[in-house]
Amino acid sequence: MERTQGPTFTLHPIGRVRSTLTDLGAAPRQPDEGAPDAWLDIEPGVADALHGIRPGAEIIVLTWLDRADRSTLVVRPRGDAARPREGVFNTRSPHRPNPIGLHQVSVVAIDGQGLHVSGLEAIDGTPIIDIKPVLDADVTRR
Amino acid sequence: MERTQGPTFTLHPIGRVRSTLTDLGAAPRQPDEGAPDAWLDIEPGVADALHGIRPGAEIIVLTWLDRADRSTLVVRPRGDAARPREGVFNTRSPHRPNPIGLHQVSVVAIDGQGLHVSGLEAIDGTPIIDIKPVLDADVTRR
Repeated sequence: MERTQGPTFTLHPIGRVRSTLTDLGAAPRQPDEGAPDAWLDIEPGVADALHGIRPGAEIIVLTWLDRADRSTLVVRPRGDAARPREGVFNTRSPHRPNPIGLHQVSVVAIDGQGLHVSGLEAIDGTPIIDIKPVLDADVTRR
Repeated sequence: MERTQGPTFTLHPIGRVRSTLTDLGAAPRQPDEGAPDAWLDIEPGVADALHGIRPGAEIIVLTWLDRADRSTLVVRPRGDAARPREGVFNTRSPHRPNPIGLHQVSVVAIDGQGLHVSGLEAIDGTPIIDIKPVLDADVTRR
């Protein structure tokens, strides 16, 4: 899909995932499928933005899935031919117009350069674009 | 904060928020504070990606908060001088290196061009960059 009009916005990665996961095919698809611990290496220029994050906190990590196909609009979830086709906005497929990954993880430890987190289903080197706390409102609205 | 090295990524908005909220100061800060219904006007070129989304679904809307200050790394939450300073990655402040907004809303109705949703705390015209379903895993991991 080519877009030739309208505004665009520029993302600057704030860091990268460091993980033992290096194979896209072997990566768990969802966090309940045994994703390993990982490290979020944060760029020194934005490390002050980590202030206040504590071990045990639940956080949301936003990544940029730079190997995704941005022209995909419809998929069969998990590549299963038996499942009906779904629009990518109704799936967590990495293939989507803006391939942003959303990962809820627990903080194991922190230091000045980054975070050790549990259960992150992203491969080594994945760019990180934002980190946010989980809010009570996220839960109570369900 | 200026970044002069490393890769950057380009976001193409997939649509815009249409809302009665037009004043940033009057906008509720969190969805439990009375945000109004809104409409997500989706670009015709990506509308196929909505396929399968049904009324009643809980979705996550990602927006680009284009009025934010991207150089802010530390804030006092909600501008309250009595509260301690926090790194923006430990807050939902719109002011952050990549000003992505994360909004969990319910789908009221859909048509070919977009979605009517309840309780979206984003002002009229806010660019939309992605839509994702809420997963069971998001809940059970808390």
